Amino acid sequence: MTILDELKFDKNDLIPVVIQDNNTKDVLMVAWMNKESINLTISNGYMYYWSRSRSKIWKKGETSNQTQKLVELRIDCDKDSLLALVEQNGVACHTGTKSCFFETIQNNKFVRNQDIITSPETLYNK
Amino acid sequence: MTILDELKFDKNDLIPVVIQDNNTKDVLMVAWMNKESINLTISNGYMYYWSRSRSKIWKKGETSNQTQKLVELRIDCDKDSLLALVEQNGVACHTGTKSCFFETIQNNKFVRNQDIITSPETLYNK
Repeated sequence: MTILDELKFDKNDLIPVVIQDNNTKDVLMVAWMNKESINLTISNGYMYYWSRSRSKIWKKGETSNQTQKLVELRIDCDKDSLLALVEQNGVACHTGTKSCFFETIQNNKFVRNQDIITSPETLYNK
Repeated sequence: MTILDELKFDKNDLIPVVIQDNNTKDVLMVAWMNKESINLTISNGYMYYWSRSRSKIWKKGETSNQTQKLVELRIDCDKDSLLALVEQNGVACHTGTKSCFFETIQNNKFVRNQDIITSPETLYNK
C-alpha cells in the first residue's frame, strides 16, 4: 500500500497532470499519468507520462532530449489532478515553443503568444 | 461556426482547464468546461465550469463569492486542454487555501504546503 492508492484515477486509470516551470512559473503543458508513470517519475526524478494516442508510457524528452526534471509533485484537494513543478531542458512543446499553450483565444481567433525557439526538425531529426 | 468548434472535447464533451493566478502565477486548480461554459466565460468575463459531480454548469464563486475574473484564455498545441489566467477574488479552494494544490507528495506522504486563509465556514455559511 502506497499513498498513490489514495489518488482518484479516471475510468482509464489516468490522472491529469499540469506541468509548471519551476523557475518562470509558466504552465508548460497538460499530460496524463497512470500509477506506473507516477512511480517511474518519483523514482527516477524525471517526468514520465502515459501517451493516450500510443497507449504506452513515455519519458518526456526520450527522443527530443527536452527532458523535465521533477522538483515537486503536488496533488489537489479532490485528489484527482496533479501539479508537477519541473526544470525544463529546452522547450516543452513538440512544435518548438517553450510552452504548449502558445495560442490565445481572442475575438474568435487563435492568436500566437510565443515564438518558436527550436525548430521541430532540430528537435526530432538528429 | 465559431473557433470553439476546433477544440477537442472528450467523450463527455468536456475539456480540462488549468486555472493560473495572473499575478502570482500560482496554479490554482484544474476544472472542466463544456462549450457552453466556455461561451459563458468569454461573454461574461468570469470563469464558468462544468461540474462533473452535479452535472451542471456553475459560476466559480456563485456561493462563496470567490470569483475568478478572466484575463486570458489559452489553448494548447493539441487543442485538448485550456489555460485560463485569472484574477482570483480571495481563495480558489473550497478548503480555504489559495490553491487547490496544497499538498505535496513527499516520501510517501501528503505534506501540506499552504495555510488555510479563510475558513470553509466563512466561505459557505454566510
